[in-house]
Amino acid sequence: MKFAGSVVVATLVLGWSISAQQPANGPVFSPSGELLRPQNYREWVFLTSGLGMTYGPAAEGQSRQSPFFDNVFVNRSSYEAFVKDGRWPDKTMFILEGRRSLDNVSINNGGRTQGDRAFIEAAVKDVQRFKETGGWAYFSFDSPNGLVNSVKPLPMTAPCYACHANNTAVENTFVQFYPELFEIARQKGTVKATYDPNKKP
Amino acid sequence: MKFAGSVVVATLVLGWSISAQQPANGPVFSPSGELLRPQNYREWVFLTSGLGMTYGPAAEGQSRQSPFFDNVFVNRSSYEAFVKDGRWPDKTMFILEGRRSLDNVSINNGGRTQGDRAFIEAAVKDVQRFKETGGWAYFSFDSPNGLVNSVKPLPMTAPCYACHANNTAVENTFVQFYPELFEIARQKGTVKATYDPNKKP
Repeated sequence: MKFAGSVVVATLVLGWSISAQQPANGPVFSPSGELLRPQNYREWVFLTSGLGMTYGPAAEGQSRQSPFFDNVFVNRSSYEAFVKDGRWPDKTMFILEGRRSLDNVSINNGGRTQGDRAFIEAAVKDVQRFKETGGWAYFSFDSPNGLVNSVKPLPMTAPCYACHANNTAVENTFVQFYPELFEIARQKGTVKATYDPNKKP
Repeated sequence: MKFAGSVVVATLVLGWSISAQQPANGPVFSPSGELLRPQNYREWVFLTSGLGMTYGPAAEGQSRQSPFFDNVFVNRSSYEAFVKDGRWPDKTMFILEGRRSLDNVSINNGGRTQGDRAFIEAAVKDVQRFKETGGWAYFSFDSPNGLVNSVKPLPMTAPCYACHANNTAVENTFVQFYPELFEIARQKGTVKATYDPNKKP
């Protein structure tokens, strides 16, 4: 029994290690339910970038001196599914990558360009795993000691859950900020009936 | 002879039509040497986005009221090659997509988000085809009547040729603006000896 148990454990650990090293196309979870930080998300499909986006009162927003760029990526197979029918399939995963913005780099004399990475966050659709929060969960890979390799979902009390549920144009996702996909959602009729472009939280 | 000629022409035209409809991974040229506008470049690998970048005197730059976002994409196989050895293989193709920037969209109360597409430009490395201009050529898919489906290279007198030759960090490409790739180029030793981060044109 002890031997059999060890084989099971070894298989699970080995399976997890192998998964962790494969290029991820969507979420990969550890045996204990932590989401692994994908190493290759920059090769996923880019959806948009914003500069200095602020979701609360503007006065509480980022410093105007060093606003962040937000780059949004989604796993490739889910992107292809969305292009086809305007909906996110189960096991869709978004990465929100924050980068410091810089002025005056090289020949650039105006505006801002992207610098070092500042944070990585994620959103995952997994209807079974996250049924208590409407099928979606949110993650931050940041810690006081830098990026971590895997994380549990943020608690249900984190503000992202309510904000994504109440202010998004398609399912729990801010497709209103992805011009190409918003057009697809309009054509496919998948924009939520409750979506109000003028609503502020 | 007439029949054989027709077969050759039909094959060329058919081959071109088929290529034009395949998802492109790099440059595809028409029989007359025009670069086809790739329909799927948003699925290529994203390199960076800037807002309101200005290459000449700042005073000549874009309006501060409505600066453009510049999204840069490169074909996937060339990206993979660059990650491996810090160099661009022959048949590398970049797309520079300009988008209008917007403020106050949906819940965003500060900073700017991406709106409609404003322009599409391209850079292609093809050592044989563009040997007179150092292996690289530059293209604009814009016209007074909107986007065109295929274009000849911009003339050698267009300012992009000299600017890319004189101010780029790796080959003829502005890798200094792509933080992840710049780090790879540094590690692989492929940053040009002549690259000066403080040089202004």
